[in-house]
Formats: sequence, structure tokens, C-alpha cells
Amino acid sequence: MRILLVNSNTSDVVTGKVAAAARAAASPGTEIAAVTGTFGARVIGTRSEHAIAEHSTIALVAKHAPGCDAVVIAVSYDTGLRGARELLGVPVVGMTEAGLLTACMLGGRIGLVTFGRRVLPLYQELVASYGLADRVAGWRTLESTAAYGPGGHPELDREIVGAANDLVARDFAEVVVLTGAVMAGVPARLQPDVPVPVVDCIVAGVRQAELLARLALPKPRAGSYAPPAGRELVDVDPAIAARFGDAGQ
Amino acid sequence: MRILLVNSNTSDVVTGKVAAAARAAASPGTEIAAVTGTFGARVIGTRSEHAIAEHSTIALVAKHAPGCDAVVIAVSYDTGLRGARELLGVPVVGMTEAGLLTACMLGGRIGLVTFGRRVLPLYQELVASYGLADRVAGWRTLESTAAYGPGGHPELDREIVGAANDLVARDFAEVVVLTGAVMAGVPARLQPDVPVPVVDCIVAGVRQAELLARLALPKPRAGSYAPPAGRELVDVDPAIAARFGDAGQ
Amino acid sequence: MRILLVNSNTSDVVTGKVAAAARAAASPGTEIAAVTGTFGARVIGTRSEHAIAEHSTIALVAKHAPGCDAVVIAVSYDTGLRGARELLGVPVVGMTEAGLLTACMLGGRIGLVTFGRRVLPLYQELVASYGLADRVAGWRTLESTAAYGPGGHPELDREIVGAANDLVARDFAEVVVLTGAVMAGVPARLQPDVPVPVVDCIVAGVRQAELLARLALPKPRAGSYAPPAGRELVDVDPAIAARFGDAGQ
Amino acid sequence: MRILLVNSNTSDVVTGKVAAAARAAASPGTEIAAVTGTFGARVIGTRSEHAIAEHSTIALVAKHAPGCDAVVIAVSYDTGLRGARELLGVPVVGMTEAGLLTACMLGGRIGLVTFGRRVLPLYQELVASYGLADRVAGWRTLESTAAYGPGGHPELDREIVGAANDLVARDFAEVVVLTGAVMAGVPARLQPDVPVPVVDCIVAGVRQAELLARLALPKPRAGSYAPPAGRELVDVDPAIAARFGDAGQ
Amino acid sequence: MRILLVNSNTSDVVTGKVAAAARAAASPGTEIAAVTGTFGARVIGTRSEHAIAEHSTIALVAKHAPGCDAVVIAVSYDTGLRGARELLGVPVVGMTEAGLLTACMLGGRIGLVTFGRRVLPLYQELVASYGLADRVAGWRTLESTAAYGPGGHPELDREIVGAANDLVARDFAEVVVLTGAVMAGVPARLQPDVPVPVVDCIVAGVRQAELLARLALPKPRAGSYAPPAGRELVDVDPAIAARFGDAGQ
Amino acid sequence: MRILLVNSNTSDVVTGKVAAAARAAASPGTEIAAVTGTFGARVIGTRSEHAIAEHSTIALVAKHAPGCDAVVIAVSYDTGLRGARELLGVPVVGMTEAGLLTACMLGGRIGLVTFGRRVLPLYQELVASYGLADRVAGWRTLESTAAYGPGGHPELDREIVGAANDLVARDFAEVVVLTGAVMAGVPARLQPDVPVPVVDCIVAGVRQAELLARLALPKPRAGSYAPPAGRELVDVDPAIAARFGDAGQ
Repeated sequence: MRILLVNSNTSDVVTGKVAAAARAAASPGTEIAAVTGTFGARVIGTRSEHAIAEHSTIALVAKHAPGCDAVVIAVSYDTGLRGARELLGVPVVGMTEAGLLTACMLGGRIGLVTFGRRVLPLYQELVASYGLADRVAGWRTLESTAAYGPGGHPELDREIVGAANDLVARDFAEVVVLTGAVMAGVPARLQPDVPVPVVDCIVAGVRQAELLARLALPKPRAGSYAPPAGRELVDVDPAIAARFGDAGQ
Repeated sequence: MRILLVNSNTSDVVTGKVAAAARAAASPGTEIAAVTGTFGARVIGTRSEHAIAEHSTIALVAKHAPGCDAVVIAVSYDTGLRGARELLGVPVVGMTEAGLLTACMLGGRIGLVTFGRRVLPLYQELVASYGLADRVAGWRTLESTAAYGPGGHPELDREIVGAANDLVARDFAEVVVLTGAVMAGVPARLQPDVPVPVVDCIVAGVRQAELLARLALPKPRAGSYAPPAGRELVDVDPAIAARFGDAGQ
Repeated sequence: MRILLVNSNTSDVVTGKVAAAARAAASPGTEIAAVTGTFGARVIGTRSEHAIAEHSTIALVAKHAPGCDAVVIAVSYDTGLRGARELLGVPVVGMTEAGLLTACMLGGRIGLVTFGRRVLPLYQELVASYGLADRVAGWRTLESTAAYGPGGHPELDREIVGAANDLVARDFAEVVVLTGAVMAGVPARLQPDVPVPVVDCIVAGVRQAELLARLALPKPRAGSYAPPAGRELVDVDPAIAARFGDAGQ
Repeated sequence: MRILLVNSNTSDVVTGKVAAAARAAASPGTEIAAVTGTFGARVIGTRSEHAIAEHSTIALVAKHAPGCDAVVIAVSYDTGLRGARELLGVPVVGMTEAGLLTACMLGGRIGLVTFGRRVLPLYQELVASYGLADRVAGWRTLESTAAYGPGGHPELDREIVGAANDLVARDFAEVVVLTGAVMAGVPARLQPDVPVPVVDCIVAGVRQAELLARLALPKPRAGSYAPPAGRELVDVDPAIAARFGDAGQ
Repeated sequence: MRILLVNSNTSDVVTGKVAAAARAAASPGTEIAAVTGTFGARVIGTRSEHAIAEHSTIALVAKHAPGCDAVVIAVSYDTGLRGARELLGVPVVGMTEAGLLTACMLGGRIGLVTFGRRVLPLYQELVASYGLADRVAGWRTLESTAAYGPGGHPELDREIVGAANDLVARDFAEVVVLTGAVMAGVPARLQPDVPVPVVDCIVAGVRQAELLARLALPKPRAGSYAPPAGRELVDVDPAIAARFGDAGQ
Repeated sequence: MRILLVNSNTSDVVTGKVAAAARAAASPGTEIAAVTGTFGARVIGTRSEHAIAEHSTIALVAKHAPGCDAVVIAVSYDTGLRGARELLGVPVVGMTEAGLLTACMLGGRIGLVTFGRRVLPLYQELVASYGLADRVAGWRTLESTAAYGPGGHPELDREIVGAANDLVARDFAEVVVLTGAVMAGVPARLQPDVPVPVVDCIVAGVRQAELLARLALPKPRAGSYAPPAGRELVDVDPAIAARFGDAGQ
């Protein structure tokens, strides 16, 4: 099986981290292909950058999904998820969507740790868009950007552990989801210091993508996820135009 | 006052209709500038086209909003609304958002008429994203594309009137919102045949944009709508790069 | 255009303040008429006073709305809003309703500052009745009554600014609504010290009333906001009886 | 025990019916006092009449509640409930509130039968205001006014039975609440023809009022239901003024 | 009237306390029969113990309900409520359900005091299952098990009073529900120190059971609460088998 | 990997069907062990039977889960899910829970087909308990019991296909979940006749159980899913007593 990881950030650093974590998480025999956005923000961190990256996700999947069995949106805002899901014939999951739904099966209400006050509302809107707002026990937000740098980040680790434990102690969280593509691999390292399961969204994303691919359910032929057909687009990437069966004048 | 109408469809036909309706609706002294998308779908009608158009909206407002006092997203999915609102220093309203919030002040639950079964879920998600799902009395969807053609469309008019009256009779709607940029100007024509107010989203959008511009509230300096600063983007339209204070390598 | 401000408190002091703020906010050419309740509480601050004032609002609008193009309920509980909206042929908005809906277009979740612990539940019920509970980031309540006195109130100003900033810092509010008719004019003064927009409900109310009046939508002929007809009432103010087309025996 | 039934309609006919049903329902030793509004609508059926009747309820309870152990609002919109509950030292229940909460203990989702399309939204808002919207299976509305006339009304009975059975068959209602003060006594008569319990709101109201009176819980000393104190009102009924400890100038 | 109190804990201590409180609360002429579980947890305090006790409740009511006019589930998780309600021909109420619904009639939002952090999520799920989550002002949890011991527990009393007052002060609770069968009788003792009503769930349960019994509504003949008929069960208590009209092979 | 399928019905027929479908669905190397309840209903179809089966699930998993890597509750009411999840050190998923969460990743709103009007409310309560009520597009219920008989059931197949297509056509469902353990294997057969994915809950359950087992997240040490410890139970199955570290007197 071949799974495409789509990072619509335009920074290879995170792609490398995510791909490594995905490979470690994947089943034997699953191949991970990871691609990085070619236009837009280095690290998506604002609403307008997210809007640009919606397009980038479509361009990336139009070009790179052929030959893949499933796709994981490896941006923690699940940027472009619904559009890609519609466009492609193979399953598409968002990393945060997969993390949240997996957490639901671990029982109880979910505590979320996010990075950056500024983007907290985006995560709240994302969770609400999945209809899962009532499953949330609470939110904690950390400001550190240390995770983007090289090497370990013990201080950040301590902050994350502190936030997770506070969610358990004060908000009665029964599972913690650690958001952010750059956090791939971190939950396993911190798990011993947190008394409830900590979900790694990349791990969940890869695993759920494998699961959906194996279910081999058909592409919808009706509704808003049916393949777009007979559409006319202009001045888009040839790979996008090809998906729409259109010359992309 | 100068208001920018942003049509991220790449079809001038709708832009012309919307601009005419907007000019008819605007206050004396309000100038309407209308722009059309340069890439993406002729008429946005799928999730992936919507994703591409999110970027298009950002590109359009980055280039054309300077010198304007407010912006109306003149695509009925309010495509790119949150990103544009963040990016710009002037108010931005979505036409459907404005239609819904205006309808709220007319009292009671809202009936919505949409075009095309396929996109109904997008509207449901849009309304839910505004926290207004509980204000909805019901939905009706029509399949006609007659409105995009030239001349009148009396048969479609009859269908719309029928749908609106059915929302009143069976779902107890107390106000009707007619979605779709191409519907600009239609509500006034059909109003006599519907016993509750029918809201024209372009009219509501232009009026609410004027209202917000006159309030002259400051741009947020905190939170997810504060101006993005110190961001690094690559290969984006120079107008976008300029808004981010970045060379857009 | 002529807009009626209805203050169903029986105290002229607030009416004067509100009217001045409304005149400052209104468009050129808009005339503001402000009326004060003739029976009931000096300052509505309890549930039973609010119940009495529901009647008072009806009596005031029945008598004073003729000749006006729109009505603003200038009591922050929007007392009598739904009844007045039904009774009159012109648009009626509640000041808090208008403030909340306007805030919705500024983006994100709303922080509310209210006065008096005792009435906080009334505001919570009011916001919920508009279907907007999910848009609320948090509440702060202040106990000061300084605003009703003459002159400035710098200490209260500091408390309001503190509450607003706390809503931003701890509850991630992206816009603040300052409730209370007596607060008319205050948001503009405090805005420089708050990093997100602060909405003045009287300003929003007057502007939205103007907007609705200009839309010139018809009075509903069906549903719960259609004009009451063929009703029989006893011992009510002749102005009310006249509206119901009844002699008011 | 003495229970006050408050009918803020100004029509004795309904008062008589309600009082008879209440007496039949009450425990041995419970005395029923029933009072009728002195101003406002003969039969409340519109939003503005409801607003006037909010005041009427306060006036009636201020005058007649002394000496009573509990109060039942015998208008099916529970008009003035929250204000009366605040004002009085004894329990106050709304007939529809009591019917709904009693129905909750019978299990499952509730079907509601209401009279008059026009007022359906008022009932929907009322149920939502109690936080019980999710308990509703469905609504049916009948237009007959036969119940206000003398004698039996077999045709209306058939319509009610039909509506109730339809709620069971199509909406999976597991209990039916029949709204309307004038319906007092009807559920018992129709029960044999409906396969789920049919709740009589007057019966539920009287029984719940007795229950609350026997609990003998103290009047709140904090919050929005604490007794209003030190308030200043003008030109209100002396009985109201007396309750507020004020001369009612 | 004879009311059965079902304690599916297997500890007589709590049964005795609950029965005493129930007898003190019941109307003259109401006889209280109290039974204790014969298998499962001494004191239900975990999810798996609760699952076992669901069965225990069915066994207890199958055996002991005959001859009773109503049943109160005297375990604060309302264990087995829905099953018992279906199985029996007489009304069944849960003590916490009754406490919450009674609290709803006292007005405003409800503060809940629970015992043991571990079980807080069970209470949250219980309240949500009744559709009452929006009526909750806040939760407080205490860890003391002193209430299970003999004699008074003044320290615990102080903690409860502190929690209740904190719910009023910080979460604007307008009524407090004290959960836990072992708390029967405690609210009356602590009421003087709390400024809003404190509901005793056993008292509420007994009173609501009496009320429902007196309503004498018929057993549903349709829906999920109709009597199970023609069912086949194996290896169950003969009393259960008898209820199902089956030999319990 | 070894997965335990728990059928707390006391009928081997369904166990056999479910086990066969589970084996067909499982990954290579996954062994399926399936157990059947020893007491309670042949086919759980009422609330009281469900309550008894809650206990049965606990008894089954206490006895049979040792040596397994994950558990699937193979009763479509997910009977005993939360208790088993708490009790065991390995992941436990409910078949309907897994079907719903998997459906969430296929996009859009979910249509559910259930068997038997009587149990529809149980499914509605189950979905609501997962916080997923807003993801539901609609419900259809069929009365056939043909699936429990031997051989094919083409008429039932046609009914299911009809219900699924009606959910798509009228309720805009974008994915269909077919409930009922006895339906294992049916979705694959009917999929060609339904234009959106049809989820097989047993397949989803087995796959999600595998996924969770491979994640190897630790057992919670805090909260309501931590292992029960130091508990005292009486007269329970020795296997249950052993899990609680107690002699089960």
C-alpha cells in the first residue's frame, strides 16, 4: 500500500519529521510518500495562509495522489481535506480528524494541546466542524516554537506534559490529543508522564488511512463527495485540470 | 465609500449581475467595484473548486482591496471570508453570512432555498460554522441553472416561489433567504408572491458592509483576526506577498 | 428617516444618554425620537420588572411608532422586542440583538461584559434565545453603578477595560460586546485600550435599524410576526387598542 | 394547601375550565383559587398580547398569591413564569413547563400538539428556553377553536387523537404533551385512543406545584431569583408596589 | 401507596439511610419498601460495576415491584432506570433524574456536587442523556467517603457547603443538586448555609414517584417503553423470566 | 493478533455470522475468537434485555479477554462498551461506535438504517451518547426479521437498498451505516446498488480494534477508564471477581 502525506506548508523540515513518524507508524508493506507545498506559507499559522493552502492541497493531491491508495493531510488544520476527499477516488483523512476520532474510541472527553494562542480559534472551529465540540474537555495552548528547531526540546516537553496533566486534573480529560504536524513522534516520548492516552495525530492519520484503504469502499456517485464532472476551470495547474477532465485553459 | 465585491468565480457574467444589484442596493455615495477571479472554476460548484477559490479570494482582496472601505464576498459559499477578514484592515462580510444575520433580525426561523442538491451540504456546513444551525426552519433545493442564462426565467421564478411558500407552510419559516450570487435582484421581484420577507444576500451584504465601514472599529491587534506579521510565504502573487510584508520569493 | 428609541425604564436619565449616543451614531438625515416608560421600574434590574416592562414596550411603541421608520429597543434585555416586532409594520431591533449580530460579522467568539451578577442569567437566556450561545467566548460581570451618576467614571472605565482584556487573554474572545443602555458611548472611549473591537449596542442598534428600514421588506403576512388581527383586548392603553383594531373596552 | 391558578387571559371561560380540571386533579385537602387577568387579550394568541400578559401575571400574583402555598401559571405559554418565580416566596410553575418535565420522566422523546399555526414558534421558543429542545420528537398543530365553545367537540377530539397517533407513528414520540389551558381535562378522555401517555399540563402543573410546596425549599437569597429589594417602580398596581416594598408613586 | 426503593449496591448501610430519608419525605399513607442488590459491587463506583448493576436493578424490580405503585432507583447513577421503566407497568424514576427535573422548576442553571473525581464523567454523561446538559452551571467534586461512616461528618458538611457556595459565586448556579444516595437527608441540614435551594435527590425521587403514580397514566402500548412480549431469555432469575412471560430455560 | 468478539445475545446463530464476517474482514494474522452470552435474551431487543446484557458483556470479557489484544462488542447497541473498556487493559470498541466514527471519515452526514421501530430510540440515544447526533442525516427503520433465518433474503435486501437510497435522496445522507450484528457481510453485497458508501459495522469494528491494538497506547491510570482497584463485589462470576482482584464472596 502507498500512502501520500500532504504537507501544504512550504517547508521541507516538517515534511521530513512527519514522513519519518509516518514510516515508523505504518504497517509493514506500507510505503509513505510525502510531498511539500510549492506555494504559500512556510508554516501555516494564519487564516489567510490557510486559505491559500486550501488550493495548495488540491494541487498537491491532483499531482501526487495518482498511484496512491490513500492520502493523509499532514497539516494540523486538515487544510483542504474536504476538497481533496471529493476530488480523489481514494480515501483522504485529516491528521487532526483522525486523531480526534481515534481518541473518541479511547473513551471520555478529549483534552487538546495546541501551539500558539493565535490559532486556537481555528482549532475550535475545526473540531466544531466535525460535530465533536461536545467531546472536548478543554484546551491548553503553548507558545513555544522550539519544536521547529533541531535537536531535543526538553523544556517544551515539560510544558506539554504540564498542559496534558492539567487537562486531566482540572478539566477531567480522559484522553489527550496533541495537535501540530511538528509534534509527530512526540506523544510516544511523553506518554510515560501522562496518566491518560496521548494521541499522535500523524500516527492516527496513517493508521486510519490504511484502514480506509483496506475497506475498499466505493467512491460516492451522489452527493457532495461524488467526483466533480463536466466542470470548467481556468488557469489552474495542469494536474488539477486533468483531474477535472478539462484542458485548464 | 468604496466597496469591493469579490467574485472568485472566473465568470464575468455573474460579476456583472451582482455588481448591478449591488449598485442598486448601495447608499447614495457608495461606489461599487467588482472583481472576478482569474483562476479556478467558472462557477464554483464543488468542494475542490471551493478550496481553489479560497486562495483566489485572498489574491483578489490583496490586489484590489487597497483603497476600498469594505469588502463583500460575492460568492454564496462566502469563500475565503475568514482569511480575507484577517488579512485586511477594512471590514469583510460574506454575502450569505450577511443574509443570514440580517434575517435573524426579521424574527423567527429561517428557510433557505439553494440551487443544486450537490452543494446543499456545503450550505449546511456554512450555516453551522456561523453557529446558526438552530435558526434554520428548513431547506429547499432547486436544480435549475436557468438563472445563469440571459433574459427572464419565469419557470424558475415559479419554482422559487413554490419552495419559499412550502418552507412557510410546512416548516414554519418566518423569513426566507435565497442563496446564490446569481440570485441577486430576484428576491425583490418575487417578494409579492411570498408572505414572509425574502432576503437578497447581495443587498444584505452591501448594506452590512456599509454599516461596518461606518462603525469604523479598529483592526484587531490580538487573536486570530489580527494582521499577520513577520510571515514568510513563497511563490504567491506579489499583491499577497506585499500584504504580508514579505518579498514573496 | 425617523427612528424611535424605546426605553421602557421609567428614568429619563438613561433615555437622554441613549438618545445622545444614538444621534451621534445615526446617518445624516436620520432623526432620533426617544421615549421613556411611564410605568414600571426606574431601572429594570429584576425578572419581574422585566415582565412589567414587556407591556410597557408595547404601550410605548403603539403610541409612538406611528410616523417612525424603525424602532430600537433601548433596554439591554431587548424587553418586548418580539411583541413589538409583531405589532408594528416597521422593523424593530433590540440593542443587544443588534450588538451581537454585528459582532458576529467581526469574526470569532464574543466576550460579553455585563453589569450586576444578578442579571447575568437574564443575559445568558437572552443570548441563548437568539441561538447564539455557541458564539460566546465568556462573560464578565461588574458591580459598579457609577455609570448612572453624572460625570466621568474613570474607575469603572478601568474595570471595563480590565474585564475586556481578561476576556481576550483567558477566554480567547475576538470581539467584545458591552451590554447596558447606560454604556452607550463608552466603547468608543475605551476602544484604544482593548485589542479587539468593542461593540456599542446602541450604535449597532441604530445602524441596523436604519439598514432594515432601507431594505423596505414587507411586513409578514403569515407566521408569528404577521399583524395581529381581529383580536379582542380589554382595559389596555387606547394606543394599543387602536393597533389591534379594537375599541379596548 | 392552597394553590393559585393564574390565568392572564381576560376570559373567565377558560378560567372556569382550568379550575375545574385543577380541582379534579389536586390532592385531597388542596384548595384551588383561580384568578383571571383584568387587562389584555381575551385569549392570548399573539406575541404582543403575550408581552402585555407578562405584566398581567405579575399584577395577578402580587395581589392574589399572599396566602397561597404555590402558584400555577395556567396560560400555556407560561406567561410571566420567571418574573413571578422571582417575585414570590412560594413555588411557581408553568403549566407547559410542568407538563414537559413530567413527560421527561415517562421516558423518551416528546410529541407536542399545539393549537394554531401562528403560535407554534412561540411554543418552540418556550421549549428551547427550558433547554428541552432535544427532547422533542415532533410537533403537530391543529387549527380548531372548537374547544372554546360549549359542549363536547368530537370532531376536534378525533383530530387530536389523529395528531397524537401520527406523532407516535412517524416521529417516534413516546409520550405526548397536549398544550393549551383549554385542553385541561381532555387528555384523560382521549387517552384510550393513544398508545402512549398523554400529559395534561394543568394536571401536571397542579401536582408539581403541590410537590414543590411540600419540599418547602427556601426562597433563594442569591442570584436572579432572589427577592427584588430596594427597587423603585412608578405607576404600578399597589399590590405590585407592595411586593417591592415601595410606595408605587 | 407503596413505593419501592431499589438500591442495586450490595450494601445495606446505604439502603437503610435512603429508606429513612424516603420515609421522612413521603406523604402520609405512603409506604416505603427498600431492597438491596444481591450481586455486584458493595458501592457502585466504576463503569463495570455500573454495568453489572444494570442487571441487578432489573432482577430487583422483577422480584419486588409487584404490589408497588411506583419505583425509585436509589442509586445516584440511576442504574437500570430505562430498562426498569420498560419492564414495569408502574412508574419508575431515577433519583438523579428526579432531582434534576425538580431543580429545573426552581429556576435557572443547576450546580452539581458529586463525590469522587473518578465518577464525574458518569454524571456528566447521565445529565447529557437526559438532554439537560445546557441547564448545568457547573460541577464540583469532593473526595471524602466520610458519609459512608457512622455518625455526623462536620468536615464533609463544610466541604459540601463550600462547594455549593462556590458554584453560586463563580458559576452563577441558581439551584444546587447534591448527588449520591448516601447524601439523602443532608441537603436539609446544610440548606441554611447555602443561599439557593439545595435539592435532595431521594426526596425528589420519592415525591416525583408519588406524583406519577397518582397521575395513573397508562403503560405505553407502543414504542421503546411498551411491555416486552414474546421474548425469549435464558438463565435469568425466575422473577425476570416471569415478567417476560417466559420459562427462563 | 487475537481479537475477541463479544456477542452478549444468547444465540449462537448471530455469533457464527458475525465471526465469519469478522474473519473475512480481519488482517492476515489476526485471529478472531467469538463468544456468546450465557444468560439473558436470545436476541436483545428491549431496554430491560439490554440492561441484563450489560452484565453479560462484563462477564464475557472478564472470562475471555485474557490473551486477546482487543475486543469488539458485537451487539449493535454496543452493550457494555464503557464498562468493558474500563475493566480491560486492552482496547475495546463497539461495533456501532466503530461504524459511525469510520463513517465520519468518509465525509458528510450519515444515514442510519435500523431494524425494528421499537429499538429506534435506543439507537438515537446511543448516537447522542457519542456526541454524534449532529452528524446524522436521517433514520430509516425496517421491520423484517428475515436476516435471522437461513439462506438469502432478497426481499429484505431490496428494502435495505430502498431505505439507503431514500436516505440519500431525501435526507442528503453522504454515507450509510447499516446497524445490526446480523447485518455483518450484507453491506458489501448491497453496495453496488447504493450510490454512497455503506458501512459494515462488524468490519469497521474489527479494523478499528486492530488499529487501536497496534497503537499500543497505555491503559489510563486516571479518570473513569482507569482500572478499578480495591473494589468489593459479591456473588459475581469468579472471572469478574478475579479482574477486580477480589474473591467475589
